[in-house]
Amino acid sequence: MAARNVIRTLIVETPSKPGNLGKVTTAIGAVGGDIGDVTTEQVGPLSTVRAITVHCESEEQLEKVIKAIEALENGIFVRAVSDEVLHAHIGGKIHMTKKMDIRSLADLRKVYTPGVASVCQAIVKDPEKARYYTSIGNTVAIVTDGTAILGLGNIGSLAGMPVMEGKAALFDHFAGISGVPILLDTSDPDEMISTIKHIAQGFGGILLEDIGSPHCFEIEERLKQELDIPVMHDDQHGTAVVTLAAVISACRNAGVDLKNAVVGQIGLGAAGLAICRMFLAYGIKQVYGIDRRKEALDRLASYGGATLNSLEELMQTCDIVIATTGVPGLIKPEMIRQGQVILALSNPKPEIDPEDAMKAGAVFASDGRSVNNVLGFPGIFRGVLNAQAKNISHRMLVAAAEAIAQTTKEGELIPHPLDMSVHQAVALAVEEVALLEQKEIKNTN
Amino acid sequence: MAARNVIRTLIVETPSKPGNLGKVTTAIGAVGGDIGDVTTEQVGPLSTVRAITVHCESEEQLEKVIKAIEALENGIFVRAVSDEVLHAHIGGKIHMTKKMDIRSLADLRKVYTPGVASVCQAIVKDPEKARYYTSIGNTVAIVTDGTAILGLGNIGSLAGMPVMEGKAALFDHFAGISGVPILLDTSDPDEMISTIKHIAQGFGGILLEDIGSPHCFEIEERLKQELDIPVMHDDQHGTAVVTLAAVISACRNAGVDLKNAVVGQIGLGAAGLAICRMFLAYGIKQVYGIDRRKEALDRLASYGGATLNSLEELMQTCDIVIATTGVPGLIKPEMIRQGQVILALSNPKPEIDPEDAMKAGAVFASDGRSVNNVLGFPGIFRGVLNAQAKNISHRMLVAAAEAIAQTTKEGELIPHPLDMSVHQAVALAVEEVALLEQKEIKNTN
Repeated sequence: MAARNVIRTLIVETPSKPGNLGKVTTAIGAVGGDIGDVTTEQVGPLSTVRAITVHCESEEQLEKVIKAIEALENGIFVRAVSDEVLHAHIGGKIHMTKKMDIRSLADLRKVYTPGVASVCQAIVKDPEKARYYTSIGNTVAIVTDGTAILGLGNIGSLAGMPVMEGKAALFDHFAGISGVPILLDTSDPDEMISTIKHIAQGFGGILLEDIGSPHCFEIEERLKQELDIPVMHDDQHGTAVVTLAAVISACRNAGVDLKNAVVGQIGLGAAGLAICRMFLAYGIKQVYGIDRRKEALDRLASYGGATLNSLEELMQTCDIVIATTGVPGLIKPEMIRQGQVILALSNPKPEIDPEDAMKAGAVFASDGRSVNNVLGFPGIFRGVLNAQAKNISHRMLVAAAEAIAQTTKEGELIPHPLDMSVHQAVALAVEEVALLEQKEIKNTN
Repeated sequence: MAARNVIRTLIVETPSKPGNLGKVTTAIGAVGGDIGDVTTEQVGPLSTVRAITVHCESEEQLEKVIKAIEALENGIFVRAVSDEVLHAHIGGKIHMTKKMDIRSLADLRKVYTPGVASVCQAIVKDPEKARYYTSIGNTVAIVTDGTAILGLGNIGSLAGMPVMEGKAALFDHFAGISGVPILLDTSDPDEMISTIKHIAQGFGGILLEDIGSPHCFEIEERLKQELDIPVMHDDQHGTAVVTLAAVISACRNAGVDLKNAVVGQIGLGAAGLAICRMFLAYGIKQVYGIDRRKEALDRLASYGGATLNSLEELMQTCDIVIATTGVPGLIKPEMIRQGQVILALSNPKPEIDPEDAMKAGAVFASDGRSVNNVLGFPGIFRGVLNAQAKNISHRMLVAAAEAIAQTTKEGELIPHPLDMSVHQAVALAVEEVALLEQKEIKNTN
């Protein structure tokens, strides 16, 4: 008997009438498809959507199964063919849920008219009350224009929605934050900024997500200036926080004195520049970066970093080297200096294989798989929302990185991302700095 | 002993250290406040927020209690003073919730990177797949500019947030729809439309809410033309659907032949005009409306309605009279014609008291308290989302009104709003019409 290695879940829609599932399963069986689980995904008054797992011997047989179902017609459709990952995403990953029950007219009159009018009036009288009587103070907009989705590039914000929903699910899970995806249909900075500003008062913070370089810089900087709620581009600062945390751990593990080290960054895209900025904020005095683009080097200089003449010179000069170029194999083993710490972060293939770097003399080497920015953003936003901070400062981000490093077990680079205590530690560290900065501002005024 | 009639819930924030609740409760008792329930609303690493119910003899004593707590200083604050309704709104009424559990690294890699990339790619390949693999097809934006919040007027969208959250809670409860409040900071039609269009692809539909007249007309009409998802201004069409349903029931109860009746509308604001339009769509041939504003009369004429010379003439001419003027007592008992059906809908005080109208000869009379538009919008959007409709037609709205009327028990005006079967009936009726219209369009092409 042939192996049935092609396992797919078919999303089949039929009219909501008895007998249709029988027709579908019979059709599948007739062309040799073997049926696993059948689960009902959605029952409407008119149509029912079921997920039917089918085991086939080949892609060709799967094609036959799909054709056999669609030949039934009369309102029977194969809506999608999913594997396990796709299947987990059916219907999306998030839902806006009521927080109280509505069981009686009294409940309804409290949640909605006429009771709700007194809540509106309380906010008219004192707009600050919106923090207590609405979800705004616990809600973060997750905003993208779809120009730099994961490593997939400019695929548009609609196709980026699964990532935004993922972030919202992680916000809920790790920090109890209500995250609302906002998909922009424009990547013009002026239009993006004006749209975000027009809707900003409904949110306690804004997480910019997967916005391409270089317009991500202008958008973040202008929004930070013009809005009085925290704004952060995760692909810059979230990544930089976790990278700094990893380097702190790596240096601790390898016995390298980070504070007096020379740091080199290869590739000055959005993440690379943010990493340089984070090291400067952490107190590293010599931070070098290299990139082909002059505007990236100018930007680095404006942060306080410097450049070098070549990749070779950087590899010779720096004690710690971080690479975010997207170029696999860029760093040759012969470039490695004895005792260097190497983080080659490009996904899915790093600039140098960590094993090769270690063999060539590195004291510590890692690729990007373990540097997961899920360790940063939930706790960072929990902290600023708790403190009712109006911005996210580099001091807060450094505190977040230190909290992650402190929670990392000896010998490891970063903590396990599902360990709740990390996210709590990050939130606490950020909240403390935010409250301290508020006190400093008060004392200055 | 004096009665303790002043019962309030104090929202008290203290540092998260043992001993602080003791200080607060001691301070309350020292000035004679009697403590009821104490519930913990929020525990942060640094501060804890508790709701403490205090029974006082007078407002003066309550003031003393608040001052006594605030005199403790050292990070102890009274954040808010709530009654029962306000208390139910603390922290807001909605939360964006993850739909799956995240228990293992495998879960994380499915919800987030790297697994999520394959979902993004499936949508790049076929954008229609976004309906299956994201929450977009089940998500409705609830958009306001805050210019006509309930009967409170132009109080701004921030103060309107409790209403928007209420709608989102009702969407979830009655229709399983994920409702996302969007608070606009502008009421300029061009800016509103461009902002909504820039974020529209993240939603399966748009519920416009509490937008003032006359800009609500332009905004709804242009959005309906320019977007390919359903758009509806609830204060117009949701109200009109429930009004038509109530009139159908009233005529059935009173033995009046609605289809051949003459209908008069007093007051042609957003709701009044939408009511006229709904009656015309229902097939009523003679629909009259009166209003002081010429542009309202022109708009009515463009829908197919006509005007009359005076309130008195309208009262003489019409079998069914609906008033939405906001002017209490506008209709005098002597104006009532024998056998008339009267719906005086202005809140909180109607144009004529229903009892007075009945005494004066009306065959049926009601005020606006029972005409609750919660009966309309959840089922209407459930129906169009199920059908993946690109718009909401008047035929769908009439079907919704008829479904509400059919679900109404004999002798009553409208069904109980918590009766789930109403919302299901509305959804089914709307979905059927939507699918029928799709078929008609297909046949035409």
